[in-house]
Amino acid sequence: MPESIDLSHDDCLRLLRGGVGGRMAICTPTGPHIVPVNYAVLDDAIVIRTSPYSILGTYGRNTTLAFEVDWFDHERQRGWSVVARGRGDVVTDPHELEHIRETRAPRPWAGGGRTLFLRLRWTELTGRRLGEAWDLIESMPVRRFP
Amino acid sequence: MPESIDLSHDDCLRLLRGGVGGRMAICTPTGPHIVPVNYAVLDDAIVIRTSPYSILGTYGRNTTLAFEVDWFDHERQRGWSVVARGRGDVVTDPHELEHIRETRAPRPWAGGGRTLFLRLRWTELTGRRLGEAWDLIESMPVRRFP
Repeated sequence: MPESIDLSHDDCLRLLRGGVGGRMAICTPTGPHIVPVNYAVLDDAIVIRTSPYSILGTYGRNTTLAFEVDWFDHERQRGWSVVARGRGDVVTDPHELEHIRETRAPRPWAGGGRTLFLRLRWTELTGRRLGEAWDLIESMPVRRFP
Repeated sequence: MPESIDLSHDDCLRLLRGGVGGRMAICTPTGPHIVPVNYAVLDDAIVIRTSPYSILGTYGRNTTLAFEVDWFDHERQRGWSVVARGRGDVVTDPHELEHIRETRAPRPWAGGGRTLFLRLRWTELTGRRLGEAWDLIESMPVRRFP
């Protein structure tokens, strides 16, 4: 059974910045929800696009959010996960929106009016890997580095 | 941009039963957490093993939990996700524990005293896929069917 090892802050950042898709968790009056999303990392924040009427659009402002990315190879028992937690807010400042669009706007796949830019500025960033004898970055299915 | 399509209940069940790893979301006094876990499906419940001192072991009893499995191919813009939500409880009945062990005990990878069997009996099971022109089950990276 492979050992579970804490990732360094730098490795967490590299894996988070290199990813494309993850899952956002949120607490609502009826309990927790998980929503798979495409995302981008800008400075120390995760940015996603959603609809104002979605669960994230409705409950994601001014509350704590948790975001997770991972990769697992079940046959070889290798894998890693990174979790970011922090306050969610909606980006409304025109200059900030311009900055997001110009740099690394997250590209949602599914259609619909995803007009809301929801941001998670993390205050906690933690990660774990299973086993040591393999390369973290090579494991990423999709990689994008600025 | 591929269309996002609701999955049938049967497809959600097939994908959920066929999977090995997913993520559990939970609300705690400090907000939401996401924890990647190995799991098994028994009857209409997801069963995971955890430690009594973990976040899931501490807060996962008698509260609503959300569990997600997904698969995405970012290059080809294909993917699916299934989310189960319902009440979490700890399995303590010796006959139920025996039944779990005999049938499909979830196998955690990482070590530690994962003595607690936490169960999510779902009351909501929903899923979505992106695009239609590809086979759902063939997409699963690991499959196990009873």
